[in-house]
Amino acid sequence: MGRWQPDSRGRLQEAALALYSERGFDQTTAAQIAARAGLTERTFFRHFADKREVLFGGSALLEERIVAGVASAPASDGPFAAVSRGLDAAAAMLGEFRRDLTRQRQAVIAANPELRERELAKLADYAATVGATLRQMGVSEPRATLAAEAGMTALRVGLQRWAGADDGQDLAATVRDVVAELRAVAASG
Amino acid sequence: MGRWQPDSRGRLQEAALALYSERGFDQTTAAQIAARAGLTERTFFRHFADKREVLFGGSALLEERIVAGVASAPASDGPFAAVSRGLDAAAAMLGEFRRDLTRQRQAVIAANPELRERELAKLADYAATVGATLRQMGVSEPRATLAAEAGMTALRVGLQRWAGADDGQDLAATVRDVVAELRAVAASG
Repeated sequence: MGRWQPDSRGRLQEAALALYSERGFDQTTAAQIAARAGLTERTFFRHFADKREVLFGGSALLEERIVAGVASAPASDGPFAAVSRGLDAAAAMLGEFRRDLTRQRQAVIAANPELRERELAKLADYAATVGATLRQMGVSEPRATLAAEAGMTALRVGLQRWAGADDGQDLAATVRDVVAELRAVAASG
Repeated sequence: MGRWQPDSRGRLQEAALALYSERGFDQTTAAQIAARAGLTERTFFRHFADKREVLFGGSALLEERIVAGVASAPASDGPFAAVSRGLDAAAAMLGEFRRDLTRQRQAVIAANPELRERELAKLADYAATVGATLRQMGVSEPRATLAAEAGMTALRVGLQRWAGADDGQDLAATVRDVVAELRAVAASG
């Protein structure tokens, strides 16, 4: 069939998500993931510190991109518009990941309370960092925290809608739609 | 001095929060809490299933109050206005708890990653339940989820501001101010 072979990291991610879905996160070992990907356990640990990092790797880079997007906002932007620039940057990065694998990742996390708490803590960390960035840009409290938290809500909801849909819309457009919906909801009586 | 003695439950809460603050949550035992309150360990376990429940007890009732508040909204309310009614109900309940103890509780939770994840999971649960309530009331997605999540953000930020302030403003008024700020932030360019 001459099927295209993704790189080792991608093959390991795909194998891990398939196994987490089939038998559950707790029941899967690094050795099983490596075997499924046709690679050695040593190769697995060259790419990931542990099986949890398959799900949460890249979060430091994502936070960096979000903050850089927020910090790039012109002075004329309101705080929520500045946060939206951070979301554009996040969507550009997250939208590179395959939609079906994103959907699988979300299902695995939703099925495991510990992973769900970890995911929520990550989002809360992003929000705290974005709030601090806005304060450095002169935004006062509680506006900075509210804009940051509302932004992370829009990112999460947008990512979920994108992963769950089968239309051709890209993640960035979906997140922008959600931001517009959030503005409309907050403005409604 | 004839100091007023709160009920056993209140004394246990006060003793627990003092010990969690002084020596850390993980280093405190139920026996120590009971001793500090001048009560027996058996009394402790009559009021709380474990030492974690001192921090998270009452959350089922709180969720019930929030949902009842949301469900009480007239059909003319937009989704965020309906959620604000839920927040009023939450503030009425949470505002009964002493402000200094609320502040202590927040500091204990912030200092312990596991407790922080638990707290975030509780808030996410409230948001999910409020979102489901709104959908039952005919609100479509993603509006229902966005209104619910934004509302929980306002509650959390309002509670934090109230606990940290020394003014005479009550929690309900603080949360209403935060809701107004959130509306303004989302409306800004």
